[in-house]
Amino acid sequence: MSHPIPTLQDVIAARPHVYRYLKPTPLHHYPTLCHLLGADIWIKHENHQPVGAFKVRGGLNLAANLDSSVRRAGLFTASTGNHGQSIAFAARAHGIQATIAVPEGANPGKVAAMKGLGGEVIFHGSDFDTAREWIMAKAEEAGGYFVGPTDEPLIHGVGTYALEILEDLPDVDTIIVPVGAGSGVCGTAIVAKGINSGIEVIGAQSAQAPAMQKSWQSGKMVTARMKTFAEGVATRIPFENTQRIMRKYLDDFILVDDDEIKKAIVLLLQHTHNLAEGAGAIALATAVKNRDKLAGKKVVLVLSGGNIALEQLRQVLGEHG
Amino acid sequence: MSHPIPTLQDVIAARPHVYRYLKPTPLHHYPTLCHLLGADIWIKHENHQPVGAFKVRGGLNLAANLDSSVRRAGLFTASTGNHGQSIAFAARAHGIQATIAVPEGANPGKVAAMKGLGGEVIFHGSDFDTAREWIMAKAEEAGGYFVGPTDEPLIHGVGTYALEILEDLPDVDTIIVPVGAGSGVCGTAIVAKGINSGIEVIGAQSAQAPAMQKSWQSGKMVTARMKTFAEGVATRIPFENTQRIMRKYLDDFILVDDDEIKKAIVLLLQHTHNLAEGAGAIALATAVKNRDKLAGKKVVLVLSGGNIALEQLRQVLGEHG
Repeated sequence: MSHPIPTLQDVIAARPHVYRYLKPTPLHHYPTLCHLLGADIWIKHENHQPVGAFKVRGGLNLAANLDSSVRRAGLFTASTGNHGQSIAFAARAHGIQATIAVPEGANPGKVAAMKGLGGEVIFHGSDFDTAREWIMAKAEEAGGYFVGPTDEPLIHGVGTYALEILEDLPDVDTIIVPVGAGSGVCGTAIVAKGINSGIEVIGAQSAQAPAMQKSWQSGKMVTARMKTFAEGVATRIPFENTQRIMRKYLDDFILVDDDEIKKAIVLLLQHTHNLAEGAGAIALATAVKNRDKLAGKKVVLVLSGGNIALEQLRQVLGEHG
Repeated sequence: MSHPIPTLQDVIAARPHVYRYLKPTPLHHYPTLCHLLGADIWIKHENHQPVGAFKVRGGLNLAANLDSSVRRAGLFTASTGNHGQSIAFAARAHGIQATIAVPEGANPGKVAAMKGLGGEVIFHGSDFDTAREWIMAKAEEAGGYFVGPTDEPLIHGVGTYALEILEDLPDVDTIIVPVGAGSGVCGTAIVAKGINSGIEVIGAQSAQAPAMQKSWQSGKMVTARMKTFAEGVATRIPFENTQRIMRKYLDDFILVDDDEIKKAIVLLLQHTHNLAEGAGAIALATAVKNRDKLAGKKVVLVLSGGNIALEQLRQVLGEHG
């Protein structure tokens, strides 16, 4: 039970595994966004990663640390989105087979992306939970490794982006991170607080999927209704291990409405010319909503991921462009 | 007249000036685009630069090589787009004043971006040529430096992205580069041919702005009708110094219709989740059109820039999404 919480050292140890395949992502300053928000706004472009999301760092660290019998048997996971692409990318980089279960009717674009990365995609069951339970059993049967969304090697790997932030902007005041299962915000908090406890780390989530926020706030594991359009943060059941880290380190955890997230997608298009999916725009939506508290501060917004579908983009532009 | 053509050595000398302020950009592989095109497709993401375009590399190299009297008097240029933002960015990095002339009625978003980067923006005249002639006179009066779009230090600086391509993918077969004034394609060709003369370098331009292509093809300086929507390649009058380099090095120079460019913007959104302006999508449009010739090859498409306006994006999605 008193399993130790990951440390800065774990993240530093992940760096060579990440940089063997990836370049650091840029931290860009956007003057017109600064003007709009009255703060010094920097964006950490994890959407520039090969699969459009920070998660690929975690997958690479995990794959680098497998023992040879597991390597032979392969990686197994369930995903309808960026997690699955990350595992497929990392597995291919390491010459390992990745098998990814998706529910029937999964988004064809994302399935094609996972297949394109060499992943074997299996349709199973009518919802995500069914697909996941099925692939977990398959993994055990095969002697392979089932990759859950908050496995510790993933947290260590994704923390490397936070080290890059602190190298590029050592005097950052506040970092705002979207929260789905929590690996990103935990990696960020471990690094930021490990280096300078004065750095404020804020988690952000859709008010239409508040399970992680309500759990953090109450100190209990709270399942909540989930109906956000932002699939990257569409968590219905909270994760224990990331909650534990978040309770220790997080300064605040803010909810923003889907409608505010959609407006932020449009602001990112206008001011940064970057495409964000819902999850990727949550940090900016949070900054807009908390403009007064951030005034004059150096603020980093983590943009991850970028994988919005064309139909969704057209819809957002129709509603808010 | 026999002024020597820039060399690989000039580009290598520019590297430290570029990397003092910028990180190398990624070269990403997109499996679903490969499948679509039947070739091994890599995208060089110059749209990930701080101003969304490769040009910023050139500005930084130019600013680093000014003598102190010019530094004091400042940089002057005329631009309605990415060139102006690049010069403003480079000037600010070097603590130099940048003064940028734009015609009355210039795009307010781009003017705001240039001002946000610290540039002084002056509206003058009803068209670009009037603004440019006026600011050239101002530069001379002030003892400052007027930056033209194809000045050699710009070519040296932008060539650094081509070195990155060859480091990441030494066995590239073909590189396709959008051509506006020609600094990008010249920087690319100098590097690629200097390292391996077998690498095919192809320039690409809108058929609705063919001046550079017609000049290259005919060996004469040909002014042509310009009515493309892709403002990054909207050249009406060809540039002598880049034509000279292109004639020496370019393997081919292909025109694609604006309509094909718009379709490529949509393909980039779908397959890479990157936002491209017209110029940024020309390399992909060219690859789609020349699918048969590229079959089985390792092809790098240069994506620059990313600065499409929201209204234009909505229009493209309406026509081709």
